[in-house]
Amino acid sequence: MSLYNQRGVSAQKEEVHNAIKQLDPGLYKNAFCKMYPDFLLGDENFVNISHADGAGTKSILAYLYWKETNDVSIWKGIAQDAVAMNLDDLLCVGVYDNFLFNSTIDRNKSKIPADVLEAIINGTQTFFNELKNYGINIHYLGGETADVGDVVRTIAVNGTMTTRWPKNKLITNDKIDAGNVIVGFASYGKATYETAYNSGLGSNGLTSARHDVLSKYYAEKYPETFEHSLSNNVVYIGKNKLTDTVQVENENIEIGKLLLSPTRTYAPLMKLLLKENFEDIYGVIHCSGGGQTKCLKYLPKPLLVIKNNLFDAPPIFKLIQENSNADFKEMYQVFNMGHRLEIFTNETAAHKMIATANTLGIEAKIIGYTEQANKSKLILNGSFGEICF
Amino acid sequence: MSLYNQRGVSAQKEEVHNAIKQLDPGLYKNAFCKMYPDFLLGDENFVNISHADGAGTKSILAYLYWKETNDVSIWKGIAQDAVAMNLDDLLCVGVYDNFLFNSTIDRNKSKIPADVLEAIINGTQTFFNELKNYGINIHYLGGETADVGDVVRTIAVNGTMTTRWPKNKLITNDKIDAGNVIVGFASYGKATYETAYNSGLGSNGLTSARHDVLSKYYAEKYPETFEHSLSNNVVYIGKNKLTDTVQVENENIEIGKLLLSPTRTYAPLMKLLLKENFEDIYGVIHCSGGGQTKCLKYLPKPLLVIKNNLFDAPPIFKLIQENSNADFKEMYQVFNMGHRLEIFTNETAAHKMIATANTLGIEAKIIGYTEQANKSKLILNGSFGEICF
Repeated sequence: MSLYNQRGVSAQKEEVHNAIKQLDPGLYKNAFCKMYPDFLLGDENFVNISHADGAGTKSILAYLYWKETNDVSIWKGIAQDAVAMNLDDLLCVGVYDNFLFNSTIDRNKSKIPADVLEAIINGTQTFFNELKNYGINIHYLGGETADVGDVVRTIAVNGTMTTRWPKNKLITNDKIDAGNVIVGFASYGKATYETAYNSGLGSNGLTSARHDVLSKYYAEKYPETFEHSLSNNVVYIGKNKLTDTVQVENENIEIGKLLLSPTRTYAPLMKLLLKENFEDIYGVIHCSGGGQTKCLKYLPKPLLVIKNNLFDAPPIFKLIQENSNADFKEMYQVFNMGHRLEIFTNETAAHKMIATANTLGIEAKIIGYTEQANKSKLILNGSFGEICF
Repeated sequence: MSLYNQRGVSAQKEEVHNAIKQLDPGLYKNAFCKMYPDFLLGDENFVNISHADGAGTKSILAYLYWKETNDVSIWKGIAQDAVAMNLDDLLCVGVYDNFLFNSTIDRNKSKIPADVLEAIINGTQTFFNELKNYGINIHYLGGETADVGDVVRTIAVNGTMTTRWPKNKLITNDKIDAGNVIVGFASYGKATYETAYNSGLGSNGLTSARHDVLSKYYAEKYPETFEHSLSNNVVYIGKNKLTDTVQVENENIEIGKLLLSPTRTYAPLMKLLLKENFEDIYGVIHCSGGGQTKCLKYLPKPLLVIKNNLFDAPPIFKLIQENSNADFKEMYQVFNMGHRLEIFTNETAAHKMIATANTLGIEAKIIGYTEQANKSKLILNGSFGEICF
C-alpha cells in the first residue's frame, strides 16, 4: 500500500466516482467539468455550470506556518488556492470570465481566531481585484462561515463557482484525437502577473508533501494537524522544518513558502489562448488530482498518449521525492511535476500558444503527442525511464 | 461564559460578521440573503444570488447513530439538512423555484466509507425528486468530495445554491413596520409532505443539543466526535443514549431520531404563500442560528417586536433544557423552540396564510406583533416569564 493510500487519500478517488455514478453526468461526458442545460434562463445555446473545490489539506500547512511565524498574511494564499482550483478547472471547458463565487469556510474556533478568517475572506476579494486587471471578472456573492470545532480540527476552505456560457464557445475534449500534440504550460517560475516565485505545487498532493517533507516536530507540537489513527510511520516523516531554506534559481527560499506557494491560475493566459486559438484547442486538462495521469479520464476515444518531453521537475518536487523516496510512478500520479495545464492541439497552433505563454512569463513547450490505439494508455518517458499507466 | 460559548460556537457569530464587513453587502441591506445585480445576464430587473450553508455538527449525530445502529439510511437526513438550510434561507427573500445546487463534502476516509458518501449524494437527489412533486425544482449540478482526514475528524456536508430572480418578486424586509403581526409556522409535527414526525430541531444548536443530551459514553467510545481541548464538563454531559425513547404524541420515539429529524423545508408552503399573498408579505425570517432573536438583524427601522403567543416548545427542546439546565433566554437564542419560519404581515393576510399552512398539515398562528420604538428591542412573553433582547 502506498504512503498516499495509508494516509487516507486517493489520487484517483475511485470511491467518490462510484458514489456519484447515479447522478446526471451532464451534457458532455468527456468535458473537464460537468455542464448542464441553461436552467437559469432556458436558452438552448447556453450551459450552466456550478463547480466546487477547495484548498484541501493545504490549509494545515498555512496553519503550521502561521503558528510558527505569526505571519497571518500567509492565509491569503489559501484564499487564492480555493479560487484557483475552481477557476482553473473551469478554464478547461473554455470559460474564462463572469463567474459568481461563494465561499464555504468551516473552522474550529478554538484554533482559528477572527484575524485568520479576515485574512482569508479579504484575501479572496483581493485576488479577485487582481484578476480583474486581466479581464477575469469574478463576483464574490458571499458565503457561509461555520464554527464546527467538533467536526473540523483546524479549518477547511472551499468555494463554489457558478457560470453561464455559450455552447459554441465550450471545450468539451471531444476533438482530442490521434495526431495531436500536447502543450504543457509550466506550473512554476514567475508569471508576469505573479509577485513572487511560484513553486508549482498547486493544491494537490499536499497531504503527502506535508507528511513527507516535514519532521516529527510538527506531530508533537501540533497534534491538531493529523488524523490520530494514522500509523506513526506515515505522519510527519520528513527531515525539514518550514523555515529551512532551499536554493531555487540563486535565491534561498523557505520550504514553507515553497509548499505554500499559492496555486498559479492560468486564467490570464487561457483568456488569450481561447480568444486567439479557439478552433485549434481540441482539449484542455488541469493536471490537478491524478497529476500527469489526469488526461486519461477525459479522452473521447482510446488513444495512446505519449509524454516524452516533460519539464524537469522543479525543486519542490525533488525535495518531496528526496524525503519520501517515492518512485517516479507515484510522484507523477500525485503531483503535476512541472506543468499543471496542458492543451491538446496541432503543431502550428502549439507554437503560437507557446509564444503567447512566454509573453506572460510562463514557460511552455510541446511535452508529448497522441497516437491511435485500441485501448487508452499513457507513457511517460524521460531521464527517469519509461512509466506506463 | 455560557455552555454554548465554552464549546467554541456562537449563536450570534460576531467574529464572522466582523470578518465580512469589507465585502460588498449586496443590493438590499435588510434582506435575509445577500442579493447582487444580474451579473450572469445583465438584466437590470433581475438579481443573482449564490448562497451556502450546511448540516454543521449534525453530521456528528448521524455518525454516532450510524456507528451504533449500522443504519446507513440515517445519512439521507443530513443530505436534506444541507439542502433545507440553504433553501429555507432563500425562501425568505421570496425565491422558491429553479435553483442550481452544488455540494461540498469533506471527509475523513478512515472513518467514513463509500456507502456513507453514496447515502448522502443519492439522498440529495432523492430529496430533490421529492420536492419536484411540489413544484420546487432544484438542479443538482455536481460537487466536490475531498478526502481530507487531517482536517476533518468525520465528515462535513455543505452545499451552495445559486439562482436568478426578478426584482419585483423579492422580499427585502424593507416593508416590515410598526403595526405588523407576526405569523409563526410550526417547525415540528408532520406536514403532509413529510413521512414521519419532525421534532422541529432543524440544523442549529446541534453542538449544544448533542453535548447536553448525550452521555459521556459517546466521548469515551467516539473521541473523533469532539474537540479535545474542550473542558470535560461541557463534553457529552447529558443523561441519554441515542436509542433511549421519549413519548411524543402517544408514540415512543428514539432520542437519536428526534435529534436527527431532517430539517423541515417550508418550500412547498412558501411557494403557495408567495403566490397568493406576495403584496402582504412584509418580511420573512428563517429562525435558524440565533433562534427567536434572528429577526432583530433584519428590521429596516427601530421597532419593538413582541412575541407573546409562542408555540409551546415541542418535546425535543424540553429534553435539551432538562439535560442542560440552560435558562430560557439561552434556549430561545440558540433554538427555534417551536417555529423556524415567521412572516411579518397584516392581520387579514395572516389568517389566510394560517389556513393555507393548515392544508399542508403545518400548524401556524399569530405569535406576536410590532410596535413603534426609538431603539429595536425584542420581548418574548409566555409561561416562562418575560425575556428581553
